[in-house]
Amino acid sequence: MINIKKLNPNLIKAQYAVRGKIVQRAYELEQEGKKIIYCNIGNPQALKQKPLTYVRQLLALCEYPKLIEDQKTKALFHKDVIEKVQRILAENPNGLGAYTQSEGMIFIRKAVSRFISERDGIESDPTKIILTDGASKGIQSVFTLLLNNPNSGFMIPIPQYPLYSATIELYGAKQINYYLDEEKHWELNKEELESSIDEAKKKGIEPVAIVVINPGNPTGSVLSKENIKMIISFAQKHNLSILADEVYQENIYSDHHKFHSFAKVMDEMKVTDVSLFSFHSTSKGFLGECGHRGGYFETKNVDSEVYSQLIKLQSIGLCSNTAGQIVTYAMVNPPQKHEDSYETYMKEKNSILGELKKKAEILGEELNKIKGMSLKFPYGAMYAFVKIDLPQEKNIRNMSKKEIAEYESKRDFNYCLELLEETGICVVPGSGFGQKPHTYHFRTTFLPPADEIKELVKKLKKFHENYLKNLSKN
Amino acid sequence: MINIKKLNPNLIKAQYAVRGKIVQRAYELEQEGKKIIYCNIGNPQALKQKPLTYVRQLLALCEYPKLIEDQKTKALFHKDVIEKVQRILAENPNGLGAYTQSEGMIFIRKAVSRFISERDGIESDPTKIILTDGASKGIQSVFTLLLNNPNSGFMIPIPQYPLYSATIELYGAKQINYYLDEEKHWELNKEELESSIDEAKKKGIEPVAIVVINPGNPTGSVLSKENIKMIISFAQKHNLSILADEVYQENIYSDHHKFHSFAKVMDEMKVTDVSLFSFHSTSKGFLGECGHRGGYFETKNVDSEVYSQLIKLQSIGLCSNTAGQIVTYAMVNPPQKHEDSYETYMKEKNSILGELKKKAEILGEELNKIKGMSLKFPYGAMYAFVKIDLPQEKNIRNMSKKEIAEYESKRDFNYCLELLEETGICVVPGSGFGQKPHTYHFRTTFLPPADEIKELVKKLKKFHENYLKNLSKN
Repeated sequence: MINIKKLNPNLIKAQYAVRGKIVQRAYELEQEGKKIIYCNIGNPQALKQKPLTYVRQLLALCEYPKLIEDQKTKALFHKDVIEKVQRILAENPNGLGAYTQSEGMIFIRKAVSRFISERDGIESDPTKIILTDGASKGIQSVFTLLLNNPNSGFMIPIPQYPLYSATIELYGAKQINYYLDEEKHWELNKEELESSIDEAKKKGIEPVAIVVINPGNPTGSVLSKENIKMIISFAQKHNLSILADEVYQENIYSDHHKFHSFAKVMDEMKVTDVSLFSFHSTSKGFLGECGHRGGYFETKNVDSEVYSQLIKLQSIGLCSNTAGQIVTYAMVNPPQKHEDSYETYMKEKNSILGELKKKAEILGEELNKIKGMSLKFPYGAMYAFVKIDLPQEKNIRNMSKKEIAEYESKRDFNYCLELLEETGICVVPGSGFGQKPHTYHFRTTFLPPADEIKELVKKLKKFHENYLKNLSKN
Repeated sequence: MINIKKLNPNLIKAQYAVRGKIVQRAYELEQEGKKIIYCNIGNPQALKQKPLTYVRQLLALCEYPKLIEDQKTKALFHKDVIEKVQRILAENPNGLGAYTQSEGMIFIRKAVSRFISERDGIESDPTKIILTDGASKGIQSVFTLLLNNPNSGFMIPIPQYPLYSATIELYGAKQINYYLDEEKHWELNKEELESSIDEAKKKGIEPVAIVVINPGNPTGSVLSKENIKMIISFAQKHNLSILADEVYQENIYSDHHKFHSFAKVMDEMKVTDVSLFSFHSTSKGFLGECGHRGGYFETKNVDSEVYSQLIKLQSIGLCSNTAGQIVTYAMVNPPQKHEDSYETYMKEKNSILGELKKKAEILGEELNKIKGMSLKFPYGAMYAFVKIDLPQEKNIRNMSKKEIAEYESKRDFNYCLELLEETGICVVPGSGFGQKPHTYHFRTTFLPPADEIKELVKKLKKFHENYLKNLSKN
């Protein structure tokens, strides 16, 4: 019989805090009847966000096209949706039950390419786009591609989305941390990048790629064009591929911020020698179709020999799921002004994005008022990364670096666990994403309904005050 | 810019013939207007098999539950389907747009567990079942789990389904081949297993698991209970985990053969110290829902510490796609006799399985009549592994083992390529699955409509005769 000692040591090491111990404890408490506010994960439809009618009508008809034949049902669907489904079935007569080509249905890849061209005003090649089961799987494919040997290093931001650190552990690669600048609203800093790559190289690590998450997870930041230019130049100088995680590109809540894709900025800079992999997903934005596992990535400056290895990798898993491919199609091919479904679509879209904006504002403003708690206003994504001041309770001067790190990561873990037990609020400790030594954070989504967010702020305030009081007593 | 020399060498090495060069050539020819008969892959709905009404009604309503509210549409759906969807939505109020738990929706895992219990008359634990994106992804998860170090060895049948060899290459593990006994209808042979593990150990390989595909892909064989008992004892003796690929369990076309699950045989033998991972999929059987990427695996004799590592691994990819989960639910929870949708369901099911049986018989009988071609009658799965006699055309006595292998694998590749170019029939060379030295095969599905299969037989005969003639001329 297999036992834990004989398993894959990389798997044992890998951590994924977003679904880690605190969340498991939340499930237990829920089973026992406690009301839990799940702020641990960007899962909008688990928090009462409704799916878009447009997306679901498309899916229902693609799954069961017989509905179109019936005159009575026809009346229940928007006219343009019916036409689109007819076009989908003409393009893909096998329907959703057949494996597609490894890289996804070609007409959907063409639609993705048009979407990118229109978004950025640049060219995009549909034969360089791969449809994936959510962005995560695409990201893991590119990690697999670029992992030349166990010394291959991937630069990732700290704090980061733990998919990255988990994948690096799992694949036995090397992680190169670069700290985001909290004081400058979590932007990337050139000196920090240079010193972190320098240090890695000194250790014998061979850097192959840099990961950038924009808008930021867990930070809620939106990078400026200047910052992106700096990153591209840095990648060019060090011959790094860029993995641009752009899954929150629709989630921007500030009039003073704009999403700049890496593809567009690279095009503006006329950089043609940096390999770029840009990821997008149907899980975020205003669709929030996490369960359907739809997504894509586009490659730029990747030659056909390399690209064909990616296709082969996809082919081993056959293809991404077809319903997810259809949701991706819906995402990149929204109803147009003159179409029947347009009004409903826009109403639903604006309501979802408007709500998110409002909730980001409540969190951004109210949490900053709590003494000992601070955060950079979340301009994008679905998260706030909240700094908490925990007074020193132990003399760490005589501890080793490792001991300090362990001790400190336990501190915000304990904070979050106690928060959960007392209030039912489920957030993820900052240590799950990474943070600078001697700082403490937690990540919360702002997905629950606005009332609950207000309630959450009140509960957090009370909890934090008591927590500090108790700390000082001990 | 990234170039091929800097990529993951394991990825470069990995081969997946089912979607390899011959298939890519078929796509090209199709683009040029040639009619292709795709016999390369078990993709029933790409070859005119219709989806089951039951499955698609369930999916359509789960995607767009608003349809249930309307009285007019209600009439278009079977009553029991509507009730089931209402139950699904009650069990999973988030709908299909939310991430589920990492291992899948619990009510579906319970349904899987009931299905196994009823199939085998044994106990099955729903908390030891994980829902996956097709069987492939589950299999790769277990490979990841068991890969302790680069010397970990996985025993796989030759011929095999190339997912296995590709995954072993990709993950940097060691492949331990055992030959299936073609003369004994591709069953496993104890002496062969012993000698192959022995040889591997001598090379310093540490065997961790044995893969068995039953019913067989590409062989079309169905293993006897005795053969399975022998395998379980072998695994027990050598402390190997068993990966039982049972995705073709519904595809049996002989009255003299029966599917025996490893779980049931193990239970009968009262073996409790061999870890078993059994895989099933919605892609095969009579559903043929390949595109939806649904599936599950059940673990037996796997302790909770080990199991929790599997859950963590799933959590890094968040969860399998929800539409695929629903198709899995439909597969394990078919309509019952008294239910409204039963009649349609049974009619569709029997028609699909009846057709497959007929086509297996045509192939099994007719190809055996062709001189220089022979096959074991396909009792199961969707494939025949056809032996072709190619007369020696080169003196191989002075060639090294490696040179011979390369030369021979080119020979059936060339055969299949020429077959494609001349007739439009797309099959996969035996070398893509592995075969004994100095033997040649190809794998064909029997999925095309019966008329086309008859046509295919005729074309194959003519092609083979000409091919041999031309060989002897050179």
